[in-house]
Amino acid sequence: MIIVGEKINTSRKGIEEAVRNRDATFVAKIARDQAEAGADYIDVNAGTFLDQEIDCLCWLVETVQNEVDLPLSLDSPNPKALSEAIKRHKGEPMINSISLETDRFQALIPVITSRPCSVVALCMAETAMPTTVEERVEVGSELINKLTDQGIPLDKIYVDPLVQPISVDTGMGIAVLGAINRIMTDFLGVNTICGLSNISYGLPARQVINRNFLALGISYGLSAAIIDPTDRQLMTTLHTVEMLLGRDEYCENFIDAYQNGRIAGG
Amino acid sequence: MIIVGEKINTSRKGIEEAVRNRDATFVAKIARDQAEAGADYIDVNAGTFLDQEIDCLCWLVETVQNEVDLPLSLDSPNPKALSEAIKRHKGEPMINSISLETDRFQALIPVITSRPCSVVALCMAETAMPTTVEERVEVGSELINKLTDQGIPLDKIYVDPLVQPISVDTGMGIAVLGAINRIMTDFLGVNTICGLSNISYGLPARQVINRNFLALGISYGLSAAIIDPTDRQLMTTLHTVEMLLGRDEYCENFIDAYQNGRIAGG
Repeated sequence: MIIVGEKINTSRKGIEEAVRNRDATFVAKIARDQAEAGADYIDVNAGTFLDQEIDCLCWLVETVQNEVDLPLSLDSPNPKALSEAIKRHKGEPMINSISLETDRFQALIPVITSRPCSVVALCMAETAMPTTVEERVEVGSELINKLTDQGIPLDKIYVDPLVQPISVDTGMGIAVLGAINRIMTDFLGVNTICGLSNISYGLPARQVINRNFLALGISYGLSAAIIDPTDRQLMTTLHTVEMLLGRDEYCENFIDAYQNGRIAGG
Repeated sequence: MIIVGEKINTSRKGIEEAVRNRDATFVAKIARDQAEAGADYIDVNAGTFLDQEIDCLCWLVETVQNEVDLPLSLDSPNPKALSEAIKRHKGEPMINSISLETDRFQALIPVITSRPCSVVALCMAETAMPTTVEERVEVGSELINKLTDQGIPLDKIYVDPLVQPISVDTGMGIAVLGAINRIMTDFLGVNTICGLSNISYGLPARQVINRNFLALGISYGLSAAIIDPTDRQLMTTLHTVEMLLGRDEYCENFIDAYQNGRIAGG
């Protein structure tokens, strides 16, 4: 399971302030905590800064990579911001994200083909958000085909089926889970990724819902997640489910996590 | 999801003593608690009493059905005990269990065809315990075919794939999950059932493992579980997963469970 640490996002209050004040110590600490908790990528998102997004994102790239030796997930819907941020990035970043929306797709192709990187492909076309499994699979498949046509290897593509609230439509869970399963089966070697928290929007006990959704996602084939790796309960679910699905030889990771106090509950 | 409340089992210390002393008040309370927590069946097992098992089991049937208006799961490997217990039972019990072992199978057929009942079919043949998905599916399929040949309707059959410890073999989780999926797909309308706790034998944080295994089981098609319905964490997983899989219209059960304090964690 590939973990993208989600915490360095200016929509979070502490981060917004830290970025505004160029407080590198604060940002570095959040990066370090996520790295130590097991993040494979650190997501950086400065979307709330609007006009200053590019500067802020570039500052985040340099600040975080000064602290941790990890690739980043460069997170913006803005091709220009991604194009600048990628130049500051050491190693092979994840570009988060491209979609089938024509302008966005065309502007991003030169960026993501300029050097080796992974890319998050949102199941979103020009029109409305997808609702069914079929719509997700259709958009996801088209994106995969277009990206591989551009020379992006299948295993560098992370399809995001777009999680929507189950409180709005009780079919939203299986729409995402079914799409994950279909895409992972139809394109062996591709990755799927998603954030979790949208699923529980509008409901109580959101963290319980989110971590059970993670368990289900993994069982349907989800290979990466954008999560808070310092959330002990969530990581407990992740370690436990990976063990139950036979991916933890001798249950070693689970036992190690338990012995190091990283398993919550009893 | 059909819930079989597992608590009235004389291998549990308090129950053993209560049965020995014919303490109907104690047993009735455990039955009532499980019924109120959502059990569909109350399991009764007096296996530790050996020579006195039949008397004890019959006493349990009458004691529990005096208290709660639910069918029971009559739990014994002993056809004679089941044959006597079923006579005391009001309504349609679940017989727990039959297997492909010749003596047991042949002795139980007259019992389970004597009146309408459900039956738990263990994926166990004459020889060793099953290890792979294939062995489970093979034994399960043969049992289903033999039971339907005897006139037992498919939806009264609960195949138990036999959960074994993942600490012994990390493939034991997927062996069970894969078998559940195959059996539910090959025999539309049949049920699958299992206990959870064997999966975590030999590991720490067993309840965390058990409830995540329940989540995975449900996502692979498990339609019934032998569990402690008064375990709030476990029932939280059950309610949450059912909602996430689209089986809770308007998320009504989940919200109701939350409002009534039956959702653990936040």
